[in-house]
Amino acid sequence: MFKQLGLIGCGMMGGSFALALKQAGLVRRVVGYSKSPSTTARARQLGVIDMEAPSALQAISGADLVMLAVPVAATESTFRAIRHLVNPGMLIVDVGSTKRDVVDAARRTLKHDLEAFVPCHPIAGREAAGVENADPRLYADCSVVITPIERTDKAKIEQARQMWLALGCGDVRLMTPHEHDAAFAAVSHLPHLLAFALMNSLAAQPDGDQYLSLAGPGFRDFSRIAASDPKMWRDVLIANRHEIGTQMQHLQRALAMLDKLIAEGRAEELERAINHASHARANWRLRPAGPG
Amino acid sequence: MFKQLGLIGCGMMGGSFALALKQAGLVRRVVGYSKSPSTTARARQLGVIDMEAPSALQAISGADLVMLAVPVAATESTFRAIRHLVNPGMLIVDVGSTKRDVVDAARRTLKHDLEAFVPCHPIAGREAAGVENADPRLYADCSVVITPIERTDKAKIEQARQMWLALGCGDVRLMTPHEHDAAFAAVSHLPHLLAFALMNSLAAQPDGDQYLSLAGPGFRDFSRIAASDPKMWRDVLIANRHEIGTQMQHLQRALAMLDKLIAEGRAEELERAINHASHARANWRLRPAGPG
Repeated sequence: MFKQLGLIGCGMMGGSFALALKQAGLVRRVVGYSKSPSTTARARQLGVIDMEAPSALQAISGADLVMLAVPVAATESTFRAIRHLVNPGMLIVDVGSTKRDVVDAARRTLKHDLEAFVPCHPIAGREAAGVENADPRLYADCSVVITPIERTDKAKIEQARQMWLALGCGDVRLMTPHEHDAAFAAVSHLPHLLAFALMNSLAAQPDGDQYLSLAGPGFRDFSRIAASDPKMWRDVLIANRHEIGTQMQHLQRALAMLDKLIAEGRAEELERAINHASHARANWRLRPAGPG
Repeated sequence: MFKQLGLIGCGMMGGSFALALKQAGLVRRVVGYSKSPSTTARARQLGVIDMEAPSALQAISGADLVMLAVPVAATESTFRAIRHLVNPGMLIVDVGSTKRDVVDAARRTLKHDLEAFVPCHPIAGREAAGVENADPRLYADCSVVITPIERTDKAKIEQARQMWLALGCGDVRLMTPHEHDAAFAAVSHLPHLLAFALMNSLAAQPDGDQYLSLAGPGFRDFSRIAASDPKMWRDVLIANRHEIGTQMQHLQRALAMLDKLIAEGRAEELERAINHASHARANWRLRPAGPG
C-alpha cells in the first residue's frame, strides 16, 4: 500500500497505471503532472489523478511511489527535473519500452539516489493514446520485465515485483537492459517499423487507396500496430536503433532466402520454408494468457 | 438454386463453401473430390459433401455448379482433368488468391467452354487448413472480387454475383485480373511474406525462443498470418511474384526513408512519418464490416 503516487505523464499508459492502483486499493492519493496542462486538467476531471501538480518536481513532493510514463526520450529531462526531491524512501518506476537509454539517463542524473529507481517495462499497450483511453485493466494479465542494474536496491526490486503482481500482472521477470532491448527489437520494434513502412508504402502509391479498400482481416491484424502513438514510437525507434538495425539484418536475410526460392520457382523448398514459419507461429502462445 | 455442386478440393475453403451453400438452401447435392482420398472420405463423414467422387472429372458429372478450391498451381491440371465434361450450362467458379495465373490456365485448357468460368476471389480465410476447419460462416460478410475476361459470359457473372450475395457476402466487385493481382500483392501477399520472414528470422537466432517468449499482443496480431497454409501460400507467392516484387520495392523505399530518419536522429521528421502511417491505419476500415 502506498500513501501517494507521483505520476509524471498522465497519458494512456500513466493514466491506466493510476486507475489500476486505485482500483486495487493500493494507493491513497494520486498527484499528477503532464507537460500539457490541459492533459493534467483532463486527468483530474476523469478521476485518474486526485490533484494537479504544476511541475514534475511538485508532483513527487510527498510521494512514496513515483511513476514516469513519458516518451523515453523525455526520461533524462524528467529525472533532472525531479532529482532534488528524490529520496531513498521512494520507489521510482517507469513503463518505457526501451531500457538501456532509460537506465543510462538514470545513471547520469540520479547518481546517489539511483538505487530507488527500478526500471520496468509492462508488455501492455494499445494504439489509442491519451488519458481518455486510460483503462484500469490495461496491465491485468500482462507480463512485466524489470531490468535492474548493479546499483538497484534489491528490496525495491521486490517491492516493484509485488506491486505489478498486485495489479494482476501474470508474470514478472528480470533481465539485463541489454537483453531486454535485443528481445524487444526483435518481437516489437521491428514489427512496428515494418507496419509503419507498409502503410507509408501504400500511401505513396497512386492506387494505394483502392488497394486498401480491398484489404481483409489478415491486413487488419498485421497492420494494427501501425496506428500506434507516433511520439512514443519516434523515441523507441531512435533509442533502440542499433538493436533494431541488427534485427533488420536478420529479417532481410530471411526475406532474401524466401525471395530467391520464389524467383527460381523452387516450390518444394519454398513450401518447407513457409511450413517452418507457419509451425513456429502456430506453436507460439501469448504468455501469460492475455485477454483474447 | 443449384441441383448439384461438383466440389474439387474439400479443404477448409472448399468445405466452407459447400457448407454455406447447403445452409443457405442453395444446393441439393454436393459431390466432392480431393487429391487425397482420406480428405474426401473425411468430408463425407463430416457432412460437407454428400458423395465422394473418385476423380475430379467424375465430381463434375451432372453438376450445374463447379467449385475449384485447390492451391492455385493445381488450377491448370484440374481444368485439364475436367474439361471433357465441362459444358456451357455449368457455372464454374474458384476461390484462388491470384487471378492472372488462374485465368491463363483457364484460357489454355478450357478453350471453347471458357465462358462458363467466372474467376472469383472471396476475401476470406483463416490460418487453420483442412476440412475439419470448414465453417459455413466463412464467407458471410466478406468481399468477393470477380475478375472476368472478355470471353466470360455476362449472364454467368451475374449468376456468380447473386450466389455470393446469397451466401451473405457484403460486397461483390469486378476488376481485371491484373488490377486484382497488383492490389493483393500490396495488401495481402507482401504482408504474408513479411510475416513468414519474421518467424524464420526469429527461428534462425540462438536467442529466438527467449525473444518469442516475451512477445506481446502486437506481435500476436502482426504475425497471425504467418500460420497460414504453406501449400496455398507457396503457390500464391510464386504465381504473383512479379507484383509482389514491385510491392517489395515500394516497401523497401518506405523502410529506407524511415531508417535514414532513425539513423540520423531526425526526431521531428520521424514523428511526422510515423504520424502519416498511424493516421492512414487509424482511418482504414475493413469493408464491409466483418465479424470483429
